[in-house]
Order: sequence, then structure tokens, then C-alpha cells
Amino acid sequence: MQTVFKSYKKDFEHSYSFGAFPTIELIKSKPEKVIKVFASTSYREEGREELENLCRKNNVELEINDKVISRLSPKESCLVIGAFKKYECELQKNVPHVALQNPSNMGNLGTIMRTMLGFGVHDLAIIGGGADILDPKVIRASMGAIFRIRFSHFDTIEQYAEIFTSHELYPFMLDGELSLSDMPPRSDKPFTLIFGNEATGLDEHYKQIGKSVVIKHSGEIDSLNLSIAAGIALYEFTKKR
Amino acid sequence: MQTVFKSYKKDFEHSYSFGAFPTIELIKSKPEKVIKVFASTSYREEGREELENLCRKNNVELEINDKVISRLSPKESCLVIGAFKKYECELQKNVPHVALQNPSNMGNLGTIMRTMLGFGVHDLAIIGGGADILDPKVIRASMGAIFRIRFSHFDTIEQYAEIFTSHELYPFMLDGELSLSDMPPRSDKPFTLIFGNEATGLDEHYKQIGKSVVIKHSGEIDSLNLSIAAGIALYEFTKKR
Repeated sequence: MQTVFKSYKKDFEHSYSFGAFPTIELIKSKPEKVIKVFASTSYREEGREELENLCRKNNVELEINDKVISRLSPKESCLVIGAFKKYECELQKNVPHVALQNPSNMGNLGTIMRTMLGFGVHDLAIIGGGADILDPKVIRASMGAIFRIRFSHFDTIEQYAEIFTSHELYPFMLDGELSLSDMPPRSDKPFTLIFGNEATGLDEHYKQIGKSVVIKHSGEIDSLNLSIAAGIALYEFTKKR
Repeated sequence: MQTVFKSYKKDFEHSYSFGAFPTIELIKSKPEKVIKVFASTSYREEGREELENLCRKNNVELEINDKVISRLSPKESCLVIGAFKKYECELQKNVPHVALQNPSNMGNLGTIMRTMLGFGVHDLAIIGGGADILDPKVIRASMGAIFRIRFSHFDTIEQYAEIFTSHELYPFMLDGELSLSDMPPRSDKPFTLIFGNEATGLDEHYKQIGKSVVIKHSGEIDSLNLSIAAGIALYEFTKKR
């Protein structure tokens, strides 16, 4: 069946990467998911040839089509768009994970995936729902990092914990028991860093499922931005390994 | 002279805080700069009385005016707006600073100020220019933290360094000499953490003005997001003090 390329909606079975950089990441990491790549006639930089070669090598169709580009482009127009089939991944066992409970901000979600990649963490569990992880805004904020991350959805943290039994779970909470900057040495078990929703944080019951951690901050702010907290935790946990 | 309240432009001598939370921060921290506070007739939560009391106590004029609110509101409408005279601060000596060279993203700028406040750093030097620090978008991203931060502009880092002679300067660079996670103990001197523009980073010559630092990350990303890098650095430097 022919896919019709319209402005993205959550219930679509496909999504888009906007811009040359994320689209190149898409083709490199998930070539089997690409439906088609569109480029504008004005995309004539050096990158054009690289893109053509990459598409040819990965058996991906490249179409020069200004109409589709201008119809799909977000406000800031872009010269390259990748259309791809949505997918879900299976998380790897015995490697570190990040888990996010109902993340609501697409920018944060993308930034966290980019930071995970920076610290060598490739597996992301989404607990309970939240923002549409394959929304083009998330892809953009991740700068294409999303295509190198394995992500999977779980209804509850208990459901997640039943599968990843070897993981030590670290829920990050404003009243966590352990201070991140002063943590005792960890075991060799893989870790899962768990963060709550931007506005509501994690429920009390998360304290029962692991060792709760606090990133101490002054009383002058209510909390750190979610992506900042995740960045600091990823830095500290991967440093100590 | 009567100030006319129109949609914000960079050359205005006044700016706006959108939303109750940042406006309350404005009134508490910079009452002498407030021109007027506007509230919508639909702002009838508990907060309304708190806002009225706060305005009275600080001798700030509060006006219920739906027209002004709907004219000034950004896309997501808000119920409270503070109009204030723009200002510049003087940085304090002998306390830790952050310096940003030409920051271009308003969201990052606001998030960095909020994170600074979280780690007890109150002084921000802007080197060379960059985004308009009092743009309402920055204020919003800072969640009002900007009103508790001292910020000041400098043409060059050399001009800055001539004034703050007791500071140890730490430019953050992708090829920095020292690794953040493995730094030798520091002296008791106040520090300045310096970060470059989102796209271009810091010039080579920054290596001469201080001890360059790298936050090591995998080769899978080009660089960490600016606000993430600043958050990690603030966490690590204030932890070690």
C-alpha cells in the first residue's frame, strides 16, 4: 500500500526525521525502516553526494521533491526529510538502562537519548506512557541519537523489573535516601536509572523497588530540569563503573 | 513617560515575565524593577490572594486586564504577566562564576541559570554577545531563576579576566587537557566555568587563558548539549569544594 506523506500525527504508522543530520543517522542505523528519503532541489552542498551514496549503499529510495519537503517541513524549513516505519525495540539484558516514567516534554526526551548515547547507555524503558517517542520533535531534539537507542514501553515498573531481574534499580527522587555525590561503591550488576515525570516526579512506592537517590541542590529551585538531572546521573554512574 | 505594552522586541527598554511563578520570582527578587503586574480575570486560584499580598507588600501595581494579557501572551496563554525595566548587574568577586561565550539558544540559557541556582552559583558572565538574556523566552526557560542571578556582559574573555583576577578559569573544550571526572584537587580560589556557543564551542585561544577541561563522552555523539555539559560541570565543581 502506498504511504501518503502528510504532516505527522501520533496515530500514523510512520514518522519523519527532519534535517540532513538526523536523516543520515536514520539511514545508517535503521535502513530497513526507511520508507523514502526526500531532498530539496536546493540541497546542493557537499552533503548531497554523501546522502546519495548512503542511500544507494543501503538500498534506500531518494526522491528530489520540493513539494513534499515544503508540505512536511516544520516552521524552520529543512532540506532533507526521512520517512520511516515506526518500530519498537527489545532492550538488551545485562547492560545499563535508563527508565522514564511518563516523560511529557519532547525536548527533554530527545536530549536524554542524546546524553545516554554520550555516556554509552543504549537502552531506554518508557514506563506508563508519556510523550510519543517517535514524534519528529523528539527525533529532532535527539539529533538522531534515537536511532541508536533501543527503547521499549512497559505498563508499570513492576512489569519492567520482572523481566530485568539482574538490574539494580535507582529511582531518582527529591527525598532519595542516598546522595548521588556520596554514594557507596556499587556492585558489578547493571544499573537502571529511573526518573519521574517533569511535573510530578516519582511516586512514593518507587522507594520500595530500589535504592532511591537524590541529586542534592539548593532550596532556591524546586527541582533540576529532568534532562539535567538525567545527564548528571549518567555522568556519575558511568564514571564510577 | 507612559510605557506602552506591546509584544516583546529586543530593543525595548522593558521585558515581561509570563506566568504566575516567574512573575512572583520577579516581584520577590527585583521589586524595584517592576513596572506593573497584569492578571487575568480568570486567575482566581489560591495564588491570586498571594499575588495581591506580594504586590501590596512590595509596592507593585497590580492590574486586572484581560486585554493586555491576551495581547502580550505567547502561544500558550498565561494568567499573570509582569512588566519590568531591563537591567544589568555587577558580578560579585571571590565567588564562583559561569561564563558563556555567545550563547545562542534561549532555552539553554534559561536552563543553565536555573541549574546554576540549584548548585549555589549566582554569577553569570556573557562574553561577546549572543541571545538577548532578558527575552521572555529565556525568563520562561529559567522558571524565574534569572531574577536571582547576577549577569553582566563583557566584550572578550580577556576583559573579564582583567577584572576577576582571583578567579581560576576553566574553559570547557572537546579537546580539553584535564578530564572532568579525573581532576586533581583544586585550590581554594573561586572558579569560572566557561562554555562556548552551541555550534562552535570555544576558540583555540581559550586554552591559553586557563586550564581547559573535557567532559569525556563516547564517539557516538559530536558533543553534549550545552545545558547538559554546564549542569554536569556545575555538579562536579560544587561537589568538590
